[in-house]
Amino acid sequence: MKLIIAVIQDKDSNRLTDALGQGNFKTTKLATTGGFLKEGNTTLMIGCEDQYVDDALDIIRDNCSKREQMVAPISPMGGNADSYIPKPVKVEVGGATVFILPIESFVQF
Amino acid sequence: MKLIIAVIQDKDSNRLTDALGQGNFKTTKLATTGGFLKEGNTTLMIGCEDQYVDDALDIIRDNCSKREQMVAPISPMGGNADSYIPKPVKVEVGGATVFILPIESFVQF
Amino acid sequence: MKLIIAVIQDKDSNRLTDALGQGNFKTTKLATTGGFLKEGNTTLMIGCEDQYVDDALDIIRDNCSKREQMVAPISPMGGNADSYIPKPVKVEVGGATVFILPIESFVQF
Ligand code: NI
Ligand code: NI
Ligand code: NI
Repeated sequence: MKLIIAVIQDKDSNRLTDALGQGNFKTTKLATTGGFLKEGNTTLMIGCEDQYVDDALDIIRDNCSKREQMVAPISPMGGNADSYIPKPVKVEVGGATVFILPIESFVQF
Repeated sequence: MKLIIAVIQDKDSNRLTDALGQGNFKTTKLATTGGFLKEGNTTLMIGCEDQYVDDALDIIRDNCSKREQMVAPISPMGGNADSYIPKPVKVEVGGATVFILPIESFVQF
Repeated sequence: MKLIIAVIQDKDSNRLTDALGQGNFKTTKLATTGGFLKEGNTTLMIGCEDQYVDDALDIIRDNCSKREQMVAPISPMGGNADSYIPKPVKVEVGGATVFILPIESFVQF
């Protein structure tokens, strides 16, 4: 049995949890950084049998890979807001750091 | 030596930490979800010798098992508050997800 | 390969992360307790080859060991603030709890 620890971006968290659930993986979600005040990380722990580790990693890759996204920049403070036309910028979002650990046992009470 | 990672409900956290301390287990408490703004999980990490793992699991089971609790519902907004008699409802609280991992060493500075 | 899980004080977090980065260690920072509302812990996860574990532990010890610090106490509420001369008190700060775990693999997406 293995424990998969995946540190992902908050914004990918619900999609990944749903996808893992559809694949019959049980996930335990740890606290995220800063709640609604600040974008942060979510840590998921997934206990699974050895033969399903690759499937879980596939699901993580499909839902959390680094990718580029167009984002509307914050309009500058002060300045002439009327004449300011926000130009979307490319930012990199997503990404996952994943550790696979051997596990002795897994219990639920 | 083993590392026990226990994800439990916030509300069981202090009771469990106290009980583990009385059993001479050293616990390290990770962040909980959302602070006072939202009920969340607490993750405890417990490093212990192999022969004490069962004792630790007993303490976790005794303090965190799933159980039913009667809770007074929130009174509905608007409506006639005077004539509203809140009827307690049963909810399931508690529960623990526990991973037991082999560990190479444990250090404190 | 090993996974080092280090639970340290928030206040040592940036210094340690910088020092580990200078040593070419990749760190993953988990959520801290309570955000800006409350001093808390930070958990760092460091995946590294076996031969570098001692180096990582040295860096953690150098940046997070328990030490004494003089702190100006909060002035008492009420009372005569004009005549109150705060006397710095010694408090213990820092400290690290570190678990070293065997790891099967480490992936980044
Ligand atoms: Ni968040
Ligand atoms: Ni909480
Ligand atoms: Ni903090």
